[in-house]
Amino acid sequence: MADIPARTELNVTTGPIRGSRKIHVGPLKVAMREIDLEPSSGEPPLRVYDCSGPYTDPNAAIDIMAGLPELRRDWIRGRGDVEEVSQREVRPEDNGQLGPDRSGGVAPFPNVRRKVLRAKAGMNVSQMHYARRGIITPEMEYVAVRENLGREMLRGHIRDGEDFGASIPDYVTPEFVRDEVARGRAIIPSNINHPESEPMAIGRNFLVKINANIGNSAVASDVASEVDKMVWSIRWGADTVMDLSTGRNIHDTREWIIRNSPVPIGTVPIYQALEKVGGIAEDLTWEIFRDTLIEQAEQGVDYFTIHAGVRLPYIPMTAKRVTGIVSRGGSIMAKWCLTHHKESFLYEHFDEITEIMKAYDIAYSLGDGLRPGSIADANDEAQFSELYTLGELTKRAWEQDVQVMIEGPGHVPMHKIKANMEKQLEACGEAPFYTLGPLTTDIAPGYDHITSAIGAAQIGWYGTAMLCYVTPKEHLGLPDRDDVKVGVVTYKLAAHAADLAKGHPAAKMRDDALSRARFEFRWRDQFNLSLDPDTAEQYHDQTLPAEGAKTAHFCSMCGPKFCSMKITQEVRDFAAKQNQPADTFIAAEEAEAGMQKMSELFRETGSELYMGSGGREHD
Amino acid sequence: MADIPARTELNVTTGPIRGSRKIHVGPLKVAMREIDLEPSSGEPPLRVYDCSGPYTDPNAAIDIMAGLPELRRDWIRGRGDVEEVSQREVRPEDNGQLGPDRSGGVAPFPNVRRKVLRAKAGMNVSQMHYARRGIITPEMEYVAVRENLGREMLRGHIRDGEDFGASIPDYVTPEFVRDEVARGRAIIPSNINHPESEPMAIGRNFLVKINANIGNSAVASDVASEVDKMVWSIRWGADTVMDLSTGRNIHDTREWIIRNSPVPIGTVPIYQALEKVGGIAEDLTWEIFRDTLIEQAEQGVDYFTIHAGVRLPYIPMTAKRVTGIVSRGGSIMAKWCLTHHKESFLYEHFDEITEIMKAYDIAYSLGDGLRPGSIADANDEAQFSELYTLGELTKRAWEQDVQVMIEGPGHVPMHKIKANMEKQLEACGEAPFYTLGPLTTDIAPGYDHITSAIGAAQIGWYGTAMLCYVTPKEHLGLPDRDDVKVGVVTYKLAAHAADLAKGHPAAKMRDDALSRARFEFRWRDQFNLSLDPDTAEQYHDQTLPAEGAKTAHFCSMCGPKFCSMKITQEVRDFAAKQNQPADTFIAAEEAEAGMQKMSELFRETGSELYMGSGGREHD
Repeated sequence: MADIPARTELNVTTGPIRGSRKIHVGPLKVAMREIDLEPSSGEPPLRVYDCSGPYTDPNAAIDIMAGLPELRRDWIRGRGDVEEVSQREVRPEDNGQLGPDRSGGVAPFPNVRRKVLRAKAGMNVSQMHYARRGIITPEMEYVAVRENLGREMLRGHIRDGEDFGASIPDYVTPEFVRDEVARGRAIIPSNINHPESEPMAIGRNFLVKINANIGNSAVASDVASEVDKMVWSIRWGADTVMDLSTGRNIHDTREWIIRNSPVPIGTVPIYQALEKVGGIAEDLTWEIFRDTLIEQAEQGVDYFTIHAGVRLPYIPMTAKRVTGIVSRGGSIMAKWCLTHHKESFLYEHFDEITEIMKAYDIAYSLGDGLRPGSIADANDEAQFSELYTLGELTKRAWEQDVQVMIEGPGHVPMHKIKANMEKQLEACGEAPFYTLGPLTTDIAPGYDHITSAIGAAQIGWYGTAMLCYVTPKEHLGLPDRDDVKVGVVTYKLAAHAADLAKGHPAAKMRDDALSRARFEFRWRDQFNLSLDPDTAEQYHDQTLPAEGAKTAHFCSMCGPKFCSMKITQEVRDFAAKQNQPADTFIAAEEAEAGMQKMSELFRETGSELYMGSGGREHD
Repeated sequence: MADIPARTELNVTTGPIRGSRKIHVGPLKVAMREIDLEPSSGEPPLRVYDCSGPYTDPNAAIDIMAGLPELRRDWIRGRGDVEEVSQREVRPEDNGQLGPDRSGGVAPFPNVRRKVLRAKAGMNVSQMHYARRGIITPEMEYVAVRENLGREMLRGHIRDGEDFGASIPDYVTPEFVRDEVARGRAIIPSNINHPESEPMAIGRNFLVKINANIGNSAVASDVASEVDKMVWSIRWGADTVMDLSTGRNIHDTREWIIRNSPVPIGTVPIYQALEKVGGIAEDLTWEIFRDTLIEQAEQGVDYFTIHAGVRLPYIPMTAKRVTGIVSRGGSIMAKWCLTHHKESFLYEHFDEITEIMKAYDIAYSLGDGLRPGSIADANDEAQFSELYTLGELTKRAWEQDVQVMIEGPGHVPMHKIKANMEKQLEACGEAPFYTLGPLTTDIAPGYDHITSAIGAAQIGWYGTAMLCYVTPKEHLGLPDRDDVKVGVVTYKLAAHAADLAKGHPAAKMRDDALSRARFEFRWRDQFNLSLDPDTAEQYHDQTLPAEGAKTAHFCSMCGPKFCSMKITQEVRDFAAKQNQPADTFIAAEEAEAGMQKMSELFRETGSELYMGSGGREHD
């Protein structure tokens, strides 16, 4: 065995996220985090959604060599509709023709299963199938608890937001989750061979989710760093992870990732199929593709990107584009279709693919192989022709009760973003939309996490259910660990901005808690309540490194001499003593009349400047 | 003299921005940059807007000790309406009570002027005054050339965008600039004592501008690093710079900055006035404030933030807020008003302030002292009460032909952003809006350049004329050089995304040029066309460091084996040979009929995979 496992074991980051405690809520032990606030705040701990799995639980024993505990094992088996079968044998081509010893630096996962699960003949094990028969699964119950967060504390709260026709409930019940899954408005990706996963929902009436891409490539990466990136990305908030490996060792890399992942894992099976035919797209066949689906289904992949909407007639529509076809999967299929001048085998065999999906409960992520790769190509005929085909395929998958989400662009200037959401809702019957960005300009390589977060926040607000992250390295190179973190945190804040704007009842609680901490100079609470406490504290310390500065009632902007926050406290004291509602409008004339009296009152109550405080913002 | 000047001299960054040449266009020698593309592209150089001044011109002699050449000297004097007067003597309190020797590490600027300019008695030297009398100044001509960029090449170009009622012309003429300034829809900040500045316009029918804040504080910074930050921020695209110094040496720091700045400089005079009274807000007087205005006017400050909208009756409205008053200027005035229980002296003496502004052509930046400091406080009564007062003051300033822009928030969730723009347009008669962000969530300290870029891009699209940058250190500490660059580039891309969405005719040229370079694997062109060529190249090199990789026809994502870009070329060749328009929709049935024939055709034309290329995007 190579030395990779040992390195893997060493490399993943464990331990609590600074300032928070792992908690497990209710009979299903739903994982969340709680952030304790300073006693001076008089506030209860804040509960936050948590994707990080057992890695942030100090009571969990982490063993990368063994994989995670199987949270869903009994739920899956308890339904009585699955059977154990022998796993398809791993073949040399699964790992890129490396031969039976699979050398090349990657050892097989030691704890690999010999028996895997499959639906019994004639059975359908998808969450949608259960939902449509009125069954509330433990997965749905888990999701309901997970999505609520502190929502129960908000009964009577005044909703504030613009949700563009979504149906976000005040309180999420298991029945609501079931109904959303039954309608196809939400999915719970949960392959029966990935019992390690903690159930989560993707749908426009739930919290906006984010996906992080990892994976090795022909020119870089090894399995140790990919497992590390997976653990690292969920630590900072990735709700799902896609393994987009394209080089060698694809099979083994994926096994390491899935066995250690508490979040759903997505793949693009055509990538591995292409490796199996030596990179020659036209040599792909339905049989090789089908076999790859089974291989990955048995490993536990939760959703497959399938580019079945790249139909032969749409391909010439891309010829006039500035950047043609930029989707890797799309171009593989375009090459195949043109070479054979045949309709796509993915489109032709779509119902057979669906048969496979339902035997493992794999969700479709219908790929946008013709998405625009530049501002110039946004919203063109090729893109929307494919989208309408994806709508047609959605309905065909739903006929077999298979879960579906739809992938979206790409590169889109702001004024063309909303049309994407509207057309998707219309064409795809409200199936969840899953978009890459979109990037709102092409001129900032190196900053495309930001050009795309601008688009992602907007399309998330309009109704996109999951946002696929973009890292600073997009278009330039492969993301390293730091890039993954920046990408995840950037998308987490974009998703949260979308939740706020949609009026998600629980979203604003965290903003308000942080704002109160900021106002009251509770520096540690401010760090701990933020998406990235480590960076927040580090930036603070660069200007005011002393330990005392973290409890100081001032900031580096104004220094200890003058403080706008303190003045507000004086305003409050004054308003209270004035004995009138604080937000009463005092007409200027009236105010003038009592000026002398008021001046005296203020001097008496609050005119002492607290020497040791400082305002926070400029001008 | 201290050792600061020498350090200053050493520290500023000079030399061309990678991959571009400084050019000077037309009789007024309007500064721009041109980016040359690889000969293989067959494309002309791309012309881009340039704020970086002589520092990026290898033919310019830079001498920080002497200051920049006075581009506008003859234009200003040639109008015959100014006179030379002796400069107000610098007093110890101007630099924070440091005594006559002004010790403390900051030397006075060596080349300080003894004589300064002022309008002759009864004269008004504002650009608005000239504009309203039908005079096209050289400043307006300069702006017209500057704003056009390559627009002349676009005659006949199809406009694409949603501009929410703006009036962006196909081509900017000097007469258009004059008309916009006369109406108050645009300003050209241009103090007659800052002849070093290159004229620029702020208005919703021009390119969206960005501002960078610099300045020392009570706890950090020195003059050398502030001058360096000014030069550094304009290098990356800051259109104006605000000197928000609050500590000692305010006068001298500002002199060094203005004398070396080719962009307009803004300040918040109440900050210096507060230092003059030892930081005790209630000790401020109109006389001290007025004297500070004259002091700064004579130095050449181009726009003043004046918080004249913080009226006494609005102050109690902030008492119920989560974060009260976060504006430093706003809280100073609130403290003063409450202590004395009097209406703000800024409001009371507004017309006298305007008299000073018109004698130097200083523009108002009417400050939003009651802007929201948290999501919870957005769009409240205090904020909008102040905004309507700013509208009233705008009209009073316009009565004296003084230029005005209006400052805006702050912290605003996405669904409440548009109302800010709409109310501002209505209340302030289309005077340019100048917003800080807005930040769209409070939960990401350390990433507030991004939370705010999301809001900035949107409000810029809706009509905001200038976006005040936010750095990653916002709320946490003082920005260093790296933070300044990240803040500027982030805001530059947000402003550009807004220009694109508004349908600015020249904006898309740069996106398209970069996209073509990307598609054709012209790596160096891709770097050079980007907002930050250094970072783009550095990121590329982290994955593929070899020099050869910069000319390689593949990228690190797919590697040398498979390339989606190449496949698009094959699609094009195929479409061309098929002898039909590339975007013709081939019905599936028809396609099927000729499949065998088409397949042969494709094999014949383009089925060879270019081995040595690689796709750019995942899935």
